[in-house]
Amino acid sequence: MRKIGFLGLGIMGRGMAANLVRAGYQVTVWNRTPRACDPLVELGARRAGSIQEAVRASEVTIAMLADPAASRDVALGPDGVVACLQPGQAYVDMSTVDPDTARTIADAVNRVGGRFLEAPVSGSRKPAEEGTLVILAAGDTELYREMQPVFEVLGKKNLHFGEVGQAAAVKLIVNMTMGGMMGLLAEALALGQNCGIDGQALLEVLDSGAVANPMFRLKGPRILVDQHDPHFPLKHMQKDLRLAVGLGDERQQTLPTVACVNETFKRALAAGLGDCDFAAVARVLQAREGGGP
Amino acid sequence: MRKIGFLGLGIMGRGMAANLVRAGYQVTVWNRTPRACDPLVELGARRAGSIQEAVRASEVTIAMLADPAASRDVALGPDGVVACLQPGQAYVDMSTVDPDTARTIADAVNRVGGRFLEAPVSGSRKPAEEGTLVILAAGDTELYREMQPVFEVLGKKNLHFGEVGQAAAVKLIVNMTMGGMMGLLAEALALGQNCGIDGQALLEVLDSGAVANPMFRLKGPRILVDQHDPHFPLKHMQKDLRLAVGLGDERQQTLPTVACVNETFKRALAAGLGDCDFAAVARVLQAREGGGP
Amino acid sequence: MRKIGFLGLGIMGRGMAANLVRAGYQVTVWNRTPRACDPLVELGARRAGSIQEAVRASEVTIAMLADPAASRDVALGPDGVVACLQPGQAYVDMSTVDPDTARTIADAVNRVGGRFLEAPVSGSRKPAEEGTLVILAAGDTELYREMQPVFEVLGKKNLHFGEVGQAAAVKLIVNMTMGGMMGLLAEALALGQNCGIDGQALLEVLDSGAVANPMFRLKGPRILVDQHDPHFPLKHMQKDLRLAVGLGDERQQTLPTVACVNETFKRALAAGLGDCDFAAVARVLQAREGGGP
Amino acid sequence: MRKIGFLGLGIMGRGMAANLVRAGYQVTVWNRTPRACDPLVELGARRAGSIQEAVRASEVTIAMLADPAASRDVALGPDGVVACLQPGQAYVDMSTVDPDTARTIADAVNRVGGRFLEAPVSGSRKPAEEGTLVILAAGDTELYREMQPVFEVLGKKNLHFGEVGQAAAVKLIVNMTMGGMMGLLAEALALGQNCGIDGQALLEVLDSGAVANPMFRLKGPRILVDQHDPHFPLKHMQKDLRLAVGLGDERQQTLPTVACVNETFKRALAAGLGDCDFAAVARVLQAREGGGP
Repeated sequence: MRKIGFLGLGIMGRGMAANLVRAGYQVTVWNRTPRACDPLVELGARRAGSIQEAVRASEVTIAMLADPAASRDVALGPDGVVACLQPGQAYVDMSTVDPDTARTIADAVNRVGGRFLEAPVSGSRKPAEEGTLVILAAGDTELYREMQPVFEVLGKKNLHFGEVGQAAAVKLIVNMTMGGMMGLLAEALALGQNCGIDGQALLEVLDSGAVANPMFRLKGPRILVDQHDPHFPLKHMQKDLRLAVGLGDERQQTLPTVACVNETFKRALAAGLGDCDFAAVARVLQAREGGGP
Repeated sequence: MRKIGFLGLGIMGRGMAANLVRAGYQVTVWNRTPRACDPLVELGARRAGSIQEAVRASEVTIAMLADPAASRDVALGPDGVVACLQPGQAYVDMSTVDPDTARTIADAVNRVGGRFLEAPVSGSRKPAEEGTLVILAAGDTELYREMQPVFEVLGKKNLHFGEVGQAAAVKLIVNMTMGGMMGLLAEALALGQNCGIDGQALLEVLDSGAVANPMFRLKGPRILVDQHDPHFPLKHMQKDLRLAVGLGDERQQTLPTVACVNETFKRALAAGLGDCDFAAVARVLQAREGGGP
Repeated sequence: MRKIGFLGLGIMGRGMAANLVRAGYQVTVWNRTPRACDPLVELGARRAGSIQEAVRASEVTIAMLADPAASRDVALGPDGVVACLQPGQAYVDMSTVDPDTARTIADAVNRVGGRFLEAPVSGSRKPAEEGTLVILAAGDTELYREMQPVFEVLGKKNLHFGEVGQAAAVKLIVNMTMGGMMGLLAEALALGQNCGIDGQALLEVLDSGAVANPMFRLKGPRILVDQHDPHFPLKHMQKDLRLAVGLGDERQQTLPTVACVNETFKRALAAGLGDCDFAAVARVLQAREGGGP
Repeated sequence: MRKIGFLGLGIMGRGMAANLVRAGYQVTVWNRTPRACDPLVELGARRAGSIQEAVRASEVTIAMLADPAASRDVALGPDGVVACLQPGQAYVDMSTVDPDTARTIADAVNRVGGRFLEAPVSGSRKPAEEGTLVILAAGDTELYREMQPVFEVLGKKNLHFGEVGQAAAVKLIVNMTMGGMMGLLAEALALGQNCGIDGQALLEVLDSGAVANPMFRLKGPRILVDQHDPHFPLKHMQKDLRLAVGLGDERQQTLPTVACVNETFKRALAAGLGDCDFAAVARVLQAREGGGP
């Protein structure tokens, strides 16, 4: 597996593709907006004029796309991956999608004799650039084994979770936990502020004990100054919470806390905070809404 | 401040008092059950036959008691601290109590001319023994300054939070965050199990990213094997969640997530899990309750 | 509009079709299981061997089907309504479906030149038989006007709510309110029982004041004796709660209470109570789950 | 029991006392602000200059006070009821208080040999004036029997619930149900509005089925026009929700829905709506909070 097609050069994909080029793979890149290919080509990648050109030039094609809709288009569209995949050829979708989308794409790939792995990642821009992602794989176990050298370039850790759809489920579970912890942090800081407690000292205490975690450390100070440049947009977190609640519905698994947090994020969305960082949810918890008879 | 009275030699107090003896302080210990004094006396502490004997022998008296009721008794009872405190003498209550109890004791101490500091801690048995507690102080700032050498023996960090009652509030905020994160962990593992996902792999993913924290690392594996020897009993966590919700009520601070988690812990309490570790809350989320028409 | 096709003779449809026959309409009935037509034919209805036979014999075709899937099949299937509808011919779907399904069917009907009304009902078997349903209509306003005589036979009241999809939304809103009130009743009775309060006396008080309502009156006593023959199965109520939460997600409308109740109903579903009456949700709130270390 | 002392002539008390005068009882009235006695005296009541004057003039003394604090003051204060109650004399507290307050007063009355009944009511100003309250009694059963003629003047129905404290519990259960239903109504109307559904038509549907109730009928239209003159102030409802959640904590009874609604009412309180009618909670659910990065 030395020849790799790489579809999607957004915030995540560009760092990942660059790491593969640097590791000596022959990478053929494609992006809907072709300009995004330029820096990769400079680095040594080959440019593909179409999805299918990238697929044909490669043993395995990796996709890293924005959302389930883009994932479906690129895989299943008339000029998409499945339409030109040869029997035995491999397709690895590393985009974050819901279990249903993952299964739909897997079925289509398998129907033409292709091999499929879903492999969403935990981690954002920086780990993508530094090759320290955590890769959550599911599907074809032989392909998973063959992908090990590639995954080792892209991430610091990779795990296999069984059938296609289960990696997507793990991703949702991780993100619902993150969203829930953000809701708790926001309530903690709001109550502290309300009691006249110094926010930085409170964060220091939270960071000294059993609940200390990188997210509190990173986002806590930003909540205190109410600055929310989007690293992970609130609207995406709300979408993941919604999908997690939906997965719970499907599996008859009660998720009272997550469902409750989802409703708080919906308030933030309705308040126009969807494009802020998801830490902006803190704003609706601190709000003194200013009413009166 | 070389002469210290120490009241309460439970799981926490005995380690703390021992550290003070070892650090060269002249420590006079008292405990409701006198036998608990023996190991301290062997170590070099003096034994007091009554609370007041300990107070009279000391420049500052520290209390580390089980709950608000014990704190009130020891401070305010007919044979208690306040009844014999001399003007200018210092009393430091390091027990975990609610803000009201802290303020009541502070008022009584001040009324007789004494000086008071509340100083609950974050951390359990091990940090108490190792002198690595986080000390949350509030009240008399001069006394706080004088206590620095003592606090440095007992903890790795100490902070001052303003008026008496605010350290108690910080303690509740930390614990409600911990309880909420436990609720989320339990929901995450239950949903994972329900989706056929390997629990240990899921914990590994949670431990690889922004939400990684010591509590998930410690308690996650115990949830998977459903073993819940009490380190922090569930009934105490539920009590702290209840007090936190109550504090929110008092301050008109909405705490939707914490209130929701409290109700889940109440289910666990009603299920007879109060004396288990608080991680046992996971059991009521996984439960298939087995009904039928 | 004297000639009516009637598709679907389940618990609801059979009573409605019978009322139309008795009111003098020429009704042509179809049901997936043909035997269900017999009592209607005895009453004077004509029997159709296929959906399309019913449609062709009628000026307007009414459908009353079990769920969105059945609604789609009957309307959009290869032998379904749309495949044989003539321009100007009318189709009225009175099944309970989600807004999306209603819109999909409306689009298909309009595309072949047909006219469409969605008209789900509030009320169950008895009001269907007695012609006292509340009909929630949306879509083609002229058709709505023409349907007035028919709706007056079927219901005691009918309202028009704007575009197709909005009647489905109203139905969900009514049902989420009902589900929420059931959750509250269950919590009220559980707390009462827990305090040693006589359940029937408590119900009498609830029935004497501002919150008195037919549902509490009907279901309260059944909760006390824990008997839950299904009038409205719990699994259907949970489905409606899920759809309502989903509608809130779509509209960015926070619904904290409804989302919370949905999670309680999911517990009941996981406990195997899906086929009981939705009042059986009370069982998971009373439950002493019987745990231990 | 022809001679009745009546303490407290607020919105509720004045109507109740007037009904007793009109029914021919010899009523001696007292109110903290003496002027409130004037209309009653005109009607034929005697005026007492102090609580104890009213108690001494009567076989039974009834209190109808604003809150637990007033109840405690009037019963237990140095010039209060208990300080002058003769053995065998009766005291009936009809104020709305928490179970603890009721039990504290009962104990004090019993200690001096008096007889005690708690008897909070369901119903507001109008039923008080019209003698159609629902009276929730608990305590001394013989006194309850003797009070029947009096209760029949004051209310349309009265029930006995066992030991002192249980009537207070019933009152909380009724009010938490009412608060919860208000939360649901608010969510229903907010979602409806959000979907472009006519509010009055939606209320009409809610009023046509199994969930129809006087509160929706009364408060629904006021939510639509956002007018909230206080009949039952929001801050009192939030207090009752808090007490109900607390009762659930005490009894280890999970109340997820009520706890969730309490948090929504706390948002309304923080928004400055405490003195509005409790229906004003709708405002925080409709709110588009207007944020942005």
